[in-house]
Amino acid sequence: MTMPHHDGSPLHVSNAAPALGDAVRVRLRVPEAFGPLAWVGTRSNPNREPRFAEASVIATVDGWQWWEAAVEVENPVHGYRWLLVGADGRQHWLNQLGLSGTETRDRDDFRLVAHEPAPAWAASSVMYQVFPDRFARSDAADARPAPDWAFPAEWSDPQRLDPPYRSGQFYGGDLDGVREKLDHLVSLGVDLLYLTPVFPARSNHRYDASTFDHVDDLLGGDEALVRLVEAAHARGIRVIGDLTSNHSGDAHEWFRAAQADPEASEREFYFFRDEAHGGGYESWLGVPSLPKFDWSSTELRRRFIEGPDSVVARYLGAPFGLDGWRIDVANMTGRLGAADLNAEVRQTIRRTMLDVNPDTILLGESTNDAASDFQGDAWHGAMTYTPFTRPLWSWLLEPGSPGGGGIGFALGRVPTFTGRDFHDTHLRFTAEFPWRTRLATMNALDTHDTPRFATHARPGAVPVALGLAVTLPGIPVVWAGDEFGLTGEDGEASRTPMPWGTEASPEVAPVLEAYRALLRLRREHPVLSTGGIRWLAVGDDALVFVRETADASVLVFAARAAAALEVDGVALPALGAAAMGGAGGSGAADAASTLFGDGRLEASAGLLCLTADGPGFTAWLLPGVASPGW
Amino acid sequence: MTMPHHDGSPLHVSNAAPALGDAVRVRLRVPEAFGPLAWVGTRSNPNREPRFAEASVIATVDGWQWWEAAVEVENPVHGYRWLLVGADGRQHWLNQLGLSGTETRDRDDFRLVAHEPAPAWAASSVMYQVFPDRFARSDAADARPAPDWAFPAEWSDPQRLDPPYRSGQFYGGDLDGVREKLDHLVSLGVDLLYLTPVFPARSNHRYDASTFDHVDDLLGGDEALVRLVEAAHARGIRVIGDLTSNHSGDAHEWFRAAQADPEASEREFYFFRDEAHGGGYESWLGVPSLPKFDWSSTELRRRFIEGPDSVVARYLGAPFGLDGWRIDVANMTGRLGAADLNAEVRQTIRRTMLDVNPDTILLGESTNDAASDFQGDAWHGAMTYTPFTRPLWSWLLEPGSPGGGGIGFALGRVPTFTGRDFHDTHLRFTAEFPWRTRLATMNALDTHDTPRFATHARPGAVPVALGLAVTLPGIPVVWAGDEFGLTGEDGEASRTPMPWGTEASPEVAPVLEAYRALLRLRREHPVLSTGGIRWLAVGDDALVFVRETADASVLVFAARAAAALEVDGVALPALGAAAMGGAGGSGAADAASTLFGDGRLEASAGLLCLTADGPGFTAWLLPGVASPGW
Repeated sequence: MTMPHHDGSPLHVSNAAPALGDAVRVRLRVPEAFGPLAWVGTRSNPNREPRFAEASVIATVDGWQWWEAAVEVENPVHGYRWLLVGADGRQHWLNQLGLSGTETRDRDDFRLVAHEPAPAWAASSVMYQVFPDRFARSDAADARPAPDWAFPAEWSDPQRLDPPYRSGQFYGGDLDGVREKLDHLVSLGVDLLYLTPVFPARSNHRYDASTFDHVDDLLGGDEALVRLVEAAHARGIRVIGDLTSNHSGDAHEWFRAAQADPEASEREFYFFRDEAHGGGYESWLGVPSLPKFDWSSTELRRRFIEGPDSVVARYLGAPFGLDGWRIDVANMTGRLGAADLNAEVRQTIRRTMLDVNPDTILLGESTNDAASDFQGDAWHGAMTYTPFTRPLWSWLLEPGSPGGGGIGFALGRVPTFTGRDFHDTHLRFTAEFPWRTRLATMNALDTHDTPRFATHARPGAVPVALGLAVTLPGIPVVWAGDEFGLTGEDGEASRTPMPWGTEASPEVAPVLEAYRALLRLRREHPVLSTGGIRWLAVGDDALVFVRETADASVLVFAARAAAALEVDGVALPALGAAAMGGAGGSGAADAASTLFGDGRLEASAGLLCLTADGPGFTAWLLPGVASPGW
Repeated sequence: MTMPHHDGSPLHVSNAAPALGDAVRVRLRVPEAFGPLAWVGTRSNPNREPRFAEASVIATVDGWQWWEAAVEVENPVHGYRWLLVGADGRQHWLNQLGLSGTETRDRDDFRLVAHEPAPAWAASSVMYQVFPDRFARSDAADARPAPDWAFPAEWSDPQRLDPPYRSGQFYGGDLDGVREKLDHLVSLGVDLLYLTPVFPARSNHRYDASTFDHVDDLLGGDEALVRLVEAAHARGIRVIGDLTSNHSGDAHEWFRAAQADPEASEREFYFFRDEAHGGGYESWLGVPSLPKFDWSSTELRRRFIEGPDSVVARYLGAPFGLDGWRIDVANMTGRLGAADLNAEVRQTIRRTMLDVNPDTILLGESTNDAASDFQGDAWHGAMTYTPFTRPLWSWLLEPGSPGGGGIGFALGRVPTFTGRDFHDTHLRFTAEFPWRTRLATMNALDTHDTPRFATHARPGAVPVALGLAVTLPGIPVVWAGDEFGLTGEDGEASRTPMPWGTEASPEVAPVLEAYRALLRLRREHPVLSTGGIRWLAVGDDALVFVRETADASVLVFAARAAAALEVDGVALPALGAAAMGGAGGSGAADAASTLFGDGRLEASAGLLCLTADGPGFTAWLLPGVASPGW
């Protein structure tokens, strides 16, 4: 049965960036076949007290009734859901999880948010993640002596994953190397470059910063970052950096000052335990090289996150001009025992960024159940694995595959999911995000912290996975090397030096081409960035959903094996299948043009039939949704 | 299939009141028939980072494996869930919603709480709610002139529900009247008396307080409250009051001072809007007689909720000695637009109460989705309608019944639920409460704010409803008059003057007797107060669950019509049915003694069969659960 539908997209919400106190019109689409309705409206919760607003039908178009109600945004995060009452008295609630015959919880409501939204370019970004030590090495690197902690390696040397090489092996990639490879990013179609940390440290990953005052000279120093950002901007590529708000390295000048002198002003930046409590200091997961910040310190805030002289501000302003930050370990930041300063810290970072340059994006890493921290007050979007990455692996990896090191699977084992499991998990972990947060949340197949998706992917699954990343709401992410088909069993193993020069090889060329084609889809079709999402069919081996705006729609069919799914023609009136009550034909396909893949779309007896002969990702361009204008 | 089980009860948790940093042992029961397990353990989330702790089998008893793991309580609210991995690699997560084959959200985790717990008597309380104007009137009332706003009525006069009588009709019940009727409470078996507001006001409900400085002289003043509490305590009955933290009346001396003088210190106690914004002031749901408090005022906090001279403190201390507070409109308190001071306010109230007398209880009214405010930091329990009252009505009222005025049904209509709907909704709205909060949350069939349950109850449903209230986790509540079978279509209509003298009438006597018998169940069986809860069978017309401790179990069978449900004998080894593979018999019933009702319990072919010939509530006493000691 075709379901009523609402989401945060422009077809359904008159104003995605309301001010507190604004009235916003919201619309619900109900298929006429859903049955006669006696009452439809919204249930809001202003100041935590329910308030209902009746909706009225403003138009009936293509077999869909459009209902509209007005909602006043009384709180910065204004939750609402729909109530549909049938002529028979049956009640249904509609929220971000779908339709329910029984009362639902507020946390799964739709949300209007009156906080400052992300820059408009956030939702349309295609992100490329670079790990500076391993991406590319300019000639200038040859003249730089390796630091004392490092085990230098030539670019073609195999990685060593045993300690101390695991964090100490040093390939010497630098920022001019990145700059020299920007054309590769352009050719891929990415427009947002995310650099993992560029500050001096005592490791190849640099998450153990020894200062935030300047860019690592081993990377070319401040000037190299300035050159890189300028060159990137000139090519239409934005650049964001990576900050460790939860901890610094133990070689950081703040930590060294604090350790050296209990009276130092930096002492309060960290959690030193007195001798009665065992001495030592708090650190990230007990790792001594990563002492944890104590955010109750106003001086720490002043130096790091607050005001124009803070670290957060410095690299956003001239001459650097970064376009934003990804904040490492955002989930743990400011949290220890009975203390929870996370909201203050993240809101302060956001405020500083708005003061310096509002046209910047703030992403927070929270790789498990993130939603409660992402209600729009600070983080624009999440770097998280629960709504997409883990369910994707669970559906598309060979059964019984390992999933170790950093991706967060319990016991390092990847469960075996049906398509229904993927769908349900995806909905469950997006249900509490405001729509705007979903649009700016990273959809990554893998990252520098995880194994590579391709390592144990089912045959033919890579384009399916990337296809989903580019067509689901959220920012698709390429972890540098994915486009070369790199594999790796955990995060460190995945930090392979980029195999430049292999682009034309028979192993790499098809992968590169698929990446270019799929990323191009995202760049060429704005509906994929900001359109609504409506799930149409879900089976063990295939998924069907459609992204929609008034101007265009994209129908997506992702299959991991040969599969056939049916969709009621009523669900996609633009394809006219509902009108084709008779024998089958491909008439429906006339209104659809294939954007990618070779799945088949046919209409028969009022149904749309989607068929795949094997694993593959298919997308069709459809007309936009005929709808009442605003 | 019999499910693995865990909850916060003493069978499963070694310490229900841990201090921050304590290690707590937690246990999971798994029926041997569940299948071979390769790994079992807990997944905690300390400082928002997952941590797994492997469990081991510590005993196998009666066909159940007992697994135990240690969990360190690192945050004041420590969430955890169980992971079970079968020998076949299949993963299942167990949380407060039950078993899931896919990853679950943190909010539905079990919780250990390191905040101060409620007094032990909270969970074992049986509550009786009194609305002072309508409960009983002592002779002293005759000498009191009616106030100017009141429309005096004789006790036997019919209620008038049209304004201004709706809030102005004045029956003159007083606190000595309550005191004179304490034997009635004793005979019922209640031990916690909840008085709606006793402060002076300009209404019969007194939620529009004109001062908090003294008890309304119309009720007998301070001395009458002192007498009442002394007499109640002497009979083993505790007494809690009702405070309006969200608003005062517009006749309150604070509001009058504020209105009279913009420079008054009380001006900041409220939200006065300047002329540019329309003038006037914020009030509860726009009702001008209930101006809303602005909790950013430190002076307001000092007078009302903070310190030994505050209102909160005054009535807990000598000579009054109240045993706690129920806070009105806790959900909206401190919340307006962009401001949310709710947590600060509730935590301050709690701190003041701990300072004055830690042996007091703090309940907050939050009649919709309450859980996010009830994580143990302040409120001990909720006065809420979502987990019990509304689903109860939806299951036990005649289909199509109205449910108006104050109970919170959308559009004033009661949905029609199956037993499965009741079960699912009950679990959904308790899943985010810590176990301790569930034990102190009010389970009411109705209250002074709602219609009376009996008004549209299905035939025979009242004992079923009350039976559930006394056997589910939480504090069972009798709204004065329920035991007389009173009816009413909304809150005001339900505030019927108590029909004293009708106790022996044929209409009332059976109801009274059912109330006495069922409340006695709760008083006599501690397992109903603190035992675990395990759902065994759910059908359209009947529900089966068991409450369990090591000492005793109570099996509950609630039917709204003739019904038969089966339970795998494995689920209740104490009844020995699992061993009775052969022909049927009532052998199982030998281990069970009937506490109430006439449902039948028989064993047949390894199954337990519960049968009801019509609506009714049945409870059996069973042996305790054979389990490893701590």
